[in-house]
Amino acid sequence: MCRWLAYQGKPCYLDEMLHQPNHSLVSQSMDATKAVTAVNADGFGIAWYGEKPTPALYREVLPAWSDANLKSLAEHTRSHRFMAHVRASTGTNTSRENCHPFNVDSWLFMHNGQIPEFEQTRYSLERHLEESFYLKRKGSTDSELIFLLLLQYNMEASPKEALKKVIARVEAEMRAKEVEDPFKASICVSNGKQFWGLRYATHGVPPTLFYKHLDSGVVLASEPYDTDREGWKSVPAQSFIALEGEQVEITQFEMR
Amino acid sequence: MCRWLAYQGKPCYLDEMLHQPNHSLVSQSMDATKAVTAVNADGFGIAWYGEKPTPALYREVLPAWSDANLKSLAEHTRSHRFMAHVRASTGTNTSRENCHPFNVDSWLFMHNGQIPEFEQTRYSLERHLEESFYLKRKGSTDSELIFLLLLQYNMEASPKEALKKVIARVEAEMRAKEVEDPFKASICVSNGKQFWGLRYATHGVPPTLFYKHLDSGVVLASEPYDTDREGWKSVPAQSFIALEGEQVEITQFEMR
Amino acid sequence: MCRWLAYQGKPCYLDEMLHQPNHSLVSQSMDATKAVTAVNADGFGIAWYGEKPTPALYREVLPAWSDANLKSLAEHTRSHRFMAHVRASTGTNTSRENCHPFNVDSWLFMHNGQIPEFEQTRYSLERHLEESFYLKRKGSTDSELIFLLLLQYNMEASPKEALKKVIARVEAEMRAKEVEDPFKASICVSNGKQFWGLRYATHGVPPTLFYKHLDSGVVLASEPYDTDREGWKSVPAQSFIALEGEQVEITQFEMR
Amino acid sequence: MCRWLAYQGKPCYLDEMLHQPNHSLVSQSMDATKAVTAVNADGFGIAWYGEKPTPALYREVLPAWSDANLKSLAEHTRSHRFMAHVRASTGTNTSRENCHPFNVDSWLFMHNGQIPEFEQTRYSLERHLEESFYLKRKGSTDSELIFLLLLQYNMEASPKEALKKVIARVEAEMRAKEVEDPFKASICVSNGKQFWGLRYATHGVPPTLFYKHLDSGVVLASEPYDTDREGWKSVPAQSFIALEGEQVEITQFEMR
Repeated sequence: MCRWLAYQGKPCYLDEMLHQPNHSLVSQSMDATKAVTAVNADGFGIAWYGEKPTPALYREVLPAWSDANLKSLAEHTRSHRFMAHVRASTGTNTSRENCHPFNVDSWLFMHNGQIPEFEQTRYSLERHLEESFYLKRKGSTDSELIFLLLLQYNMEASPKEALKKVIARVEAEMRAKEVEDPFKASICVSNGKQFWGLRYATHGVPPTLFYKHLDSGVVLASEPYDTDREGWKSVPAQSFIALEGEQVEITQFEMR
Repeated sequence: MCRWLAYQGKPCYLDEMLHQPNHSLVSQSMDATKAVTAVNADGFGIAWYGEKPTPALYREVLPAWSDANLKSLAEHTRSHRFMAHVRASTGTNTSRENCHPFNVDSWLFMHNGQIPEFEQTRYSLERHLEESFYLKRKGSTDSELIFLLLLQYNMEASPKEALKKVIARVEAEMRAKEVEDPFKASICVSNGKQFWGLRYATHGVPPTLFYKHLDSGVVLASEPYDTDREGWKSVPAQSFIALEGEQVEITQFEMR
Repeated sequence: MCRWLAYQGKPCYLDEMLHQPNHSLVSQSMDATKAVTAVNADGFGIAWYGEKPTPALYREVLPAWSDANLKSLAEHTRSHRFMAHVRASTGTNTSRENCHPFNVDSWLFMHNGQIPEFEQTRYSLERHLEESFYLKRKGSTDSELIFLLLLQYNMEASPKEALKKVIARVEAEMRAKEVEDPFKASICVSNGKQFWGLRYATHGVPPTLFYKHLDSGVVLASEPYDTDREGWKSVPAQSFIALEGEQVEITQFEMR
Repeated sequence: MCRWLAYQGKPCYLDEMLHQPNHSLVSQSMDATKAVTAVNADGFGIAWYGEKPTPALYREVLPAWSDANLKSLAEHTRSHRFMAHVRASTGTNTSRENCHPFNVDSWLFMHNGQIPEFEQTRYSLERHLEESFYLKRKGSTDSELIFLLLLQYNMEASPKEALKKVIARVEAEMRAKEVEDPFKASICVSNGKQFWGLRYATHGVPPTLFYKHLDSGVVLASEPYDTDREGWKSVPAQSFIALEGEQVEITQFEMR
């Protein structure tokens, strides 16, 4: 399990959310409170949009708290739309290629959750990838695979529909291999113009997902980055969330 | 292109070949003379057999010359059978998972050369991998793919036959995609009991491969590690080489 | 604060203590129970003696749990005398040069604890280093400084006397700067032939230190590596411990 | 020896100089033509000024050519004043703390050259550092030491005078230790508002230094980043160069 955060609004320095708050994402890398694992130190990543359609991407295998580059970049980088992720591996190894966010063209993707017993379904799921998407695979995580499937299933046209198709495919393969633990995910994607998020589990309680309106914009996160939690709202389970400007639209996400 | 070295014989410290000679493998990482690329600094790896059937494996993304751990390990590790490799990427990224040697169970594999225009054939070649071998893939190099195909094509029974089958498969896919540059390779594999090597190109001159009898054993290498080259013999092009104890057996390797 | 372990006896594989026990040192890197900080993920190091008087040294900035090299090295390296350390920084940055154990010639040193408010006394303490010892400094930790002072104060002749002199010097500088928090340390050193350890605090409770007799030898550690703790004995506060072969000699360590 | 580049003018993306030119700084990391060492792969660093008085700093131990983070950061970061450096170690180890540029408050410093036989003079030179500057030392290079001495010798008031005082001190210590090789340096510093540079050697030929006026601003570099070298001017030996806006002022730099 992992922790992540996404912000859009008036340009702000990344460290205003990554380092400064009293329960900031970087402090969550050592001591998350809403997560299955308290320590999220198997690498991290940040990505931000500027004037180009493609985002800047910085990923590293160190714990977020101990990387001086992250601290300096976050202090000096201002963006109107950025993502950050601290990773707790569910089995795959610690490498930059396995760190979130994942990026293809102008798209970004990050994820907390997992395909349970991924080794059971990895082979058949990866064979669903068409050549052009297969060749974009650099690492070995379930997360990157979900991202590539989303792109293949035309996320461009409808992120919600693409998510439904991908999850249907994942759950079908899980059933075929008699994997009984639920698929669980809190996902965030962006095309560089807005965010979409998902909070979902096949059954049981999905990973937490919160959002908050700030004076400057909107932030979406695995858990509140301040300890008093004032103003944070929980996204309901089995929900799809669209953030356009400061608009937050939450709709039900049912798989049938 | 890369540089590599393999030794078997009486146990010796790794640094006797990796650091001490005047044109040692580590010095070749900065300044190879027989290679397409003089600089081989996109990571490195060493592996050695001891008392267990499986080898120890140490791989790192730094240039070999700047890694203090490598220096200390090589100075203090003695082995009767070891491999070492310094990497020059032909396109895939620099990560530990993309560094040689590659290891599965008691097998080791390392490689200098490439599948030309690998992105053309990668998709179809990887689809030849059966599930059990596919799941062992951790990186994205053509080298690791060749290794996994060799295991699938029963290298256990005959390394030479497995090499023929894999190269036939690779060259067939290359023809199908009209890739005209030759497949070139100098390969070294071990099951923990002996070495086998290959020097091959579809057409043209394959990467260099040399061997030398020492008082203590036999060494096989991309290029001699001493500048006077005394006692080094070149393995002929299109040859398969088997090293069993101090025995060196070289046989022709023709693809039809 | 950090966690460490030292073993001497019949040669055993490092992973028998670093990975296999249910509360092994590597698992303590994520979840120590006797430490001020539960997470010890600011790098790690291992060192072992073989046939040479100098030890092999492997240090890395990753968390111990996520380094595949450590796992392989520990599985395949056998030693009659080794040290291992997982680090939680008390302020200095995460670099290999700041990871324990520290090594000069045949000596090794590792440490859990700190010189409180080290920036207050660092300048004057480092000026006590003579040129030949000063030039051996590669990092910026208080730990490496203590080690170099020990060497300068003739640890060769008497580790216990050297420790007294160094701590007297440190505490004198602390008083001069009115640093009131206690100096606290659990230290382990070796000359390649035996271990010496210290459990000390200026006042208050020093960091924990335990030892255990195994069938094969003796292990000294910050905390027991098995959850039932059977056979582990606590070293009393303000004690110096000498491990020679299987002999454990504990003597009082008083600063006046 | 190393290679470096500094730009000020209208904001431009860093990759316009670091990656795009046919003999860009990143390509010089593998194949410099004007340097003592062709390979500059012992780490690298970039730093840039934005809206804050302090700069952003990104340093890494990988070769510049193999770091995907550098590529993405350079493609997406625009700055009106930035520095970049690719390192070839003259003996000290490869760590982020030993990579240029060095930063204190709003000051940046980078350097190509060396204090010859630095181990001879390191002890006495570091003892010239006052406590407040001594405590800023994080690594072990001669370069960082020169920077800290410059700050201590009031670079704020006059970079040229501070350089003279520091070099006088260095050369005095070298004479005291009978070091006969010359001190050689091409240095670049900035306070966030402009650049100053130096091309100097005690005797003999100092490291090369070039500058060029672009449409958008001025660039100062160890060697031209385009192979036709059109428009590049060599800074004469024993010269101090001040870049204020697009103004380039070159004055003699004599040590007596």
